[in-house]
Amino acid sequence: MPSTTPAPCAPDDVRRIACIGAGVIGGGWAAHFLARGYDVTAWDPAPDAEPKLRRLVAAAWPALERIGLAAGASPDRLTVAPTLAEAVADADFVQESAPEKLELKRSLLARLAAATRPGVVIASSTSGYPMTDMQTEAAGPDDAGRLVVGHPFNPPYLIPLVEVVGGERTDRAAVEWAARFYDLAGKSVITMDRELPGFIANRLQEALWREALHMVAAGEATVEDIDASITEGPGLRWAFMGPCLTFALAGGEGGMAHMLDHFGPSLKSPWTRLAAPELDPALRDAMVDGCAAAAGGRTYADLVAERDQGVIDVLRATGRLGGPR
Amino acid sequence: MPSTTPAPCAPDDVRRIACIGAGVIGGGWAAHFLARGYDVTAWDPAPDAEPKLRRLVAAAWPALERIGLAAGASPDRLTVAPTLAEAVADADFVQESAPEKLELKRSLLARLAAATRPGVVIASSTSGYPMTDMQTEAAGPDDAGRLVVGHPFNPPYLIPLVEVVGGERTDRAAVEWAARFYDLAGKSVITMDRELPGFIANRLQEALWREALHMVAAGEATVEDIDASITEGPGLRWAFMGPCLTFALAGGEGGMAHMLDHFGPSLKSPWTRLAAPELDPALRDAMVDGCAAAAGGRTYADLVAERDQGVIDVLRATGRLGGPR
Repeated sequence: MPSTTPAPCAPDDVRRIACIGAGVIGGGWAAHFLARGYDVTAWDPAPDAEPKLRRLVAAAWPALERIGLAAGASPDRLTVAPTLAEAVADADFVQESAPEKLELKRSLLARLAAATRPGVVIASSTSGYPMTDMQTEAAGPDDAGRLVVGHPFNPPYLIPLVEVVGGERTDRAAVEWAARFYDLAGKSVITMDRELPGFIANRLQEALWREALHMVAAGEATVEDIDASITEGPGLRWAFMGPCLTFALAGGEGGMAHMLDHFGPSLKSPWTRLAAPELDPALRDAMVDGCAAAAGGRTYADLVAERDQGVIDVLRATGRLGGPR
Repeated sequence: MPSTTPAPCAPDDVRRIACIGAGVIGGGWAAHFLARGYDVTAWDPAPDAEPKLRRLVAAAWPALERIGLAAGASPDRLTVAPTLAEAVADADFVQESAPEKLELKRSLLARLAAATRPGVVIASSTSGYPMTDMQTEAAGPDDAGRLVVGHPFNPPYLIPLVEVVGGERTDRAAVEWAARFYDLAGKSVITMDRELPGFIANRLQEALWREALHMVAAGEATVEDIDASITEGPGLRWAFMGPCLTFALAGGEGGMAHMLDHFGPSLKSPWTRLAAPELDPALRDAMVDGCAAAAGGRTYADLVAERDQGVIDVLRATGRLGGPR
């Protein structure tokens, strides 16, 4: 589509960001943007949203200090607005992180486009809906054209990846603007040319996750076995070398060519199940109990702190923390 | 089965290990065992096996020095034997890492059991065959009973995981002996009670890998996108927290229960493909070319060195390198 909706400011002139939805993901985005030195205005209709959000930001802040804050960054630059309209009124960019319900996303994105200044790019944190399916209620090309997917990973204040992709009605310039903005805001961006339900990383981890659920459902492996099989094995490589290049190394000096020519036939081996398992109560409980056992008395806060420190350590260890950007 | 084949020595009395097959995996095992202070005798029928093996050990050694060698460890304690019989004659443990061909594994494991001292445990590095299918040619219970799977990850001298499982004819005591021995030899062991083709970690990474192949085949993502989507995203967590516990955190304070109750229905979303793709020449070439592009001029040796240093850094960063064991 032709560019009909120039953004009101360049990606490097963004000062104020609206975070719509302030749960684990929306709050994590708020923490990230605050740490990068932006003003953040949040809005969430839940009655206890503000204290929860401020607790989340406070819990994340020590980790963010350790990896380095932008000049002037402060949790005090977080405002919680009483209405959606007030939250986005002077926003240069909007990050929507509402619950994963298609109807809700549709109406919310249309309301956001109507309430923001013309041209402001609005990104959805959806973990899987194509933007084409979410932008159906946006009023016209000026509204629909600046709706993009900006899909983060948890926690958004530490995991660099953001997947950026537009829908059929999205202006290509809005996709490019968002990719550039996220890059400036310290994220690692994958811009997708085609819509794909689940995008890239979620499709990959969902495939692994389904196989894990099957193994637990069949009593073939415990949650603990599954987690250890990743953290003590392939997970150690995947923190810094992806599955394709990792498999290429398995081909020795012959690389991926040798790997595929040699091991290609074993692709047909029955190593994975292919349909999603029935998530019956027994499987649900086995997963819940298995995770409780794996946590071994550590609270949610303990695990979050452990995860955060772990990600920082891995990022630093693999040369991805040169200092504050 | 009752224990009919006591090992000739306790796991902590092992001094000499035979590595049968000296390619990437067998050579990697040799480097690991040498670094842990064992004598290693290798055998491989390939004419150029010895220089290749010694190059592999020499290339691995600096990394092994950095993470700390056992007292007395030396690459000079590697012997290459001219025959299989001489390689295993005085071995206290045998690690078989021959090519992944079932008929070859069957006859080789039978020969190894016949040539070793009675009771010596023989482990196969197979990446997926159940031991029940591999132990069919072993002469009797004393031979078949001490054949186990000991499946490592590449490179075996850095990635801790070993999956240990027996076949129908395997003595339970041999499985326990192997698990204890690997633990003493510095590995992280998952002992499986049930045979499962592909074991645990390979089933999981194979599911992810198939989805990656589908996306490349359909032109939906590049190899570079796929690798970045893991290393910049979920891979950063999987180096120290497995997929189950990671997903539990996605449920916020409600943990896995909230995650499954809330996101369970999206399991039915069409986020992954379910059958293995046809590995046609176009897909093969797309993967080969994509990996070459991802390597960006780095040689195989560059990538191995980078991977090794990366694993060390991640291990150290996540507290798994307290010092030499």
